[in-house]
Amino acid sequence: VASWFSRGRQRIAAPTLRARSVAKTSSRADLEEFTPTVPELLGRAAYVQLMLFENLGRAVATAPTTAAKAALGRVAERAIGKHRALMSELDALGLDSTGAMEPFTAEVDEFQRMTQGSDWFELVLTCYLTAGFLGDFSAKLASGLDGDERARIEPVFTADWGEHELSGLLNEAMEENPRLGSRLAMWGRRLVGDTMLVARASLRHKDHDPAVHYAAEEARIEPVFTELVAAHTRRMDALGLTA
Amino acid sequence: VASWFSRGRQRIAAPTLRARSVAKTSSRADLEEFTPTVPELLGRAAYVQLMLFENLGRAVATAPTTAAKAALGRVAERAIGKHRALMSELDALGLDSTGAMEPFTAEVDEFQRMTQGSDWFELVLTCYLTAGFLGDFSAKLASGLDGDERARIEPVFTADWGEHELSGLLNEAMEENPRLGSRLAMWGRRLVGDTMLVARASLRHKDHDPAVHYAAEEARIEPVFTELVAAHTRRMDALGLTA
Repeated sequence: VASWFSRGRQRIAAPTLRARSVAKTSSRADLEEFTPTVPELLGRAAYVQLMLFENLGRAVATAPTTAAKAALGRVAERAIGKHRALMSELDALGLDSTGAMEPFTAEVDEFQRMTQGSDWFELVLTCYLTAGFLGDFSAKLASGLDGDERARIEPVFTADWGEHELSGLLNEAMEENPRLGSRLAMWGRRLVGDTMLVARASLRHKDHDPAVHYAAEEARIEPVFTELVAAHTRRMDALGLTA
Repeated sequence: VASWFSRGRQRIAAPTLRARSVAKTSSRADLEEFTPTVPELLGRAAYVQLMLFENLGRAVATAPTTAAKAALGRVAERAIGKHRALMSELDALGLDSTGAMEPFTAEVDEFQRMTQGSDWFELVLTCYLTAGFLGDFSAKLASGLDGDERARIEPVFTADWGEHELSGLLNEAMEENPRLGSRLAMWGRRLVGDTMLVARASLRHKDHDPAVHYAAEEARIEPVFTELVAAHTRRMDALGLTA
């Protein structure tokens, strides 16, 4: 595990930066030089969206009320729509869209397995935090693409993914059951660690230049993750929870 | 259980009519006089679509290959899109869209529970046959609405719901494992019985006119179900299975 991660947990516990939005701050810290190839970026992101959609589908199926089912259904539709948009982009590039996802299935499936949570509330928090973090991260990667590709792909990740529906459901649940908060705060802390690892892994596919020392590479990646963690903290704040 | 159902199984085993499409034959047999009120029709259909979507979401999550996941994702997106369209229609009518679904949740949840199947293959057959039958049935009901409402609602049910994607997945699976066919044929027979019962139940909500004898009512409903069963038989035929 790279050096950045050894400090990861501490940074999450006491973040100081409040980013307004990751997209708006992309000039300050970007991943341009670490951007994977287009098939890698799209293939992984398409499979991640499918995983997020599966989680939302399970949240719909296990929701305690009809209203929650309907709200989660709206969020699930957006997730599968993003998946389809990425698959269409792969098709338009003349690539095998299913094949482009294959290299990432084992890793993403394992991430999904680890982040299911023990009940519906934890699962909804997973949907909220992982869609947010991985969407922000993909938007960062897409901002390093060339003009045309960037113009087509970046909006897929910056478009509404149902943040307010999900935070609304969680806030409602915590109002009804105030003791839920501390359990969700703990689950959120565990989630962000796993989520950072799966995001970080997608940068490993980039050919490593032996002339660049890992520490130097980490130094360039770290500011991006600081922003992503700040956005995560803002999402936890929206639930009244400490990240 | 009404008299029609006592003969149901026999009729399914040896259907003789091959309808080209239910929509095209609506002049021959229709449910106009049994059409539920608009909130009933839309509320029930919206919840049925949510149930179909949940099943598809579970089929995505448990699919054996990435290609199957992607194909099922496309079908799931259509199912949740139909749900949203029906909810929007309820909203546009100034009705409480979630509340409109509530009267039907227990019955539809029970139907869902009974039709899960024992593995992914049976679940995909459930998605294929129940979406087909219940979609055709709802299209029939919608054809009894007044002009404007009919023009807005009927296309939701007649639009593509992923029939070819689902039959493609099932045919592929049976090619790889020819012994699957007889098991799926049996499951299909069980499904159609449960599906007819849940469809028939939605006509019970109509105020029953005591002047109309049940037998006469049944006589008018029966031709519609004959068409729906014929369409079901065509879907089984597309899998090389006897209904």
